[in-house]
Amino acid sequence: MNDKTLSAAARLAVGLVHYPVVNRDGNTVTSSVTSLDVHDFARVCRTYGVGGLYIVTPLEAQARLVERLIGHWTAGYGSTANPERKEALTGVKVVDTIEDMLDNFGLGIEGAVVMVTSARPGPDTVSYAEGRKALEKAPRAALLFGTAHGLARPAMEMATIRLAPIPGVREYNHLPVRSAASIIMDRLLGQGG
Amino acid sequence: MNDKTLSAAARLAVGLVHYPVVNRDGNTVTSSVTSLDVHDFARVCRTYGVGGLYIVTPLEAQARLVERLIGHWTAGYGSTANPERKEALTGVKVVDTIEDMLDNFGLGIEGAVVMVTSARPGPDTVSYAEGRKALEKAPRAALLFGTAHGLARPAMEMATIRLAPIPGVREYNHLPVRSAASIIMDRLLGQGG
Repeated sequence: MNDKTLSAAARLAVGLVHYPVVNRDGNTVTSSVTSLDVHDFARVCRTYGVGGLYIVTPLEAQARLVERLIGHWTAGYGSTANPERKEALTGVKVVDTIEDMLDNFGLGIEGAVVMVTSARPGPDTVSYAEGRKALEKAPRAALLFGTAHGLARPAMEMATIRLAPIPGVREYNHLPVRSAASIIMDRLLGQGG
Repeated sequence: MNDKTLSAAARLAVGLVHYPVVNRDGNTVTSSVTSLDVHDFARVCRTYGVGGLYIVTPLEAQARLVERLIGHWTAGYGSTANPERKEALTGVKVVDTIEDMLDNFGLGIEGAVVMVTSARPGPDTVSYAEGRKALEKAPRAALLFGTAHGLARPAMEMATIRLAPIPGVREYNHLPVRSAASIIMDRLLGQGG
């Protein structure tokens, strides 16, 4: 594929990750898929022209649930009742692991970027302006969001770029993953002042 | 109150409006309260330091539902099980009408701003950069979000400032109100690059 003809958004895949993530106590867990997250992520990705949305879960029953949801809205009754949802959910993929997502989207090429975000400050984070520039240059890129209390260390370590936390006022920083993803995609891909 | 000591965010009230809104066919309806919207709005408002969050619904049964939800998380079992939710939901108010919201937050003063957003382009919309400046100058401000398919005309006409739609790619523009509100609050109040 000739990626040079694609926009930065179209060269980007977004991953909604349910494993490996951490719970409130910092233990690594597999979170449950929330169907509303799938809908919201699909609509935001579609709005910004993101090239692919991957729902990452190793649990087969959960994967089947998401596939049934996608089928309902893209081929079943919902596809005629609500065509905007069909448009948003078309092309959403369910995969077992982050590695499968990266393989499927062709991230194994030189210069590919894997970007993660975190609600917790840490070393070596970059600003959104820098993240935006990196996406413009990258031939392919992935942006991973952790459900529950965020991505576990093995997922964080797959990143080539770690974005700074969204600056909250005072110390409160407990955005829903749906909100954080909306804000981050707008900061990285949005247009207009 | 001495508003000069408050930040622009603290002088701002956000309204999640369930009446008057339009449905898919453009008819004016009262939408149902989605408890998840209340949670998400509360967490985003808390993150950006917004001065007040108002859930606007004329339906008494719906108002009681929201008050029970708030009570559970701020005084009931949830307040100890999940203190971040307590913090987010403390101070969320349920009111019958937009007018009640404006009265309650002291919007009847000179120079007060009432800001609305729309998914549809229209005349006299302003950019987010301009909206940000207006909030910095205003002694008090309100920012109204319509559920369902958006605010109905009488609500739009209460506005002193109408924000431009969030620019989506191509023609698709069907963001969930949760996502739109997250992005708009970040554009108007967010910090950092």
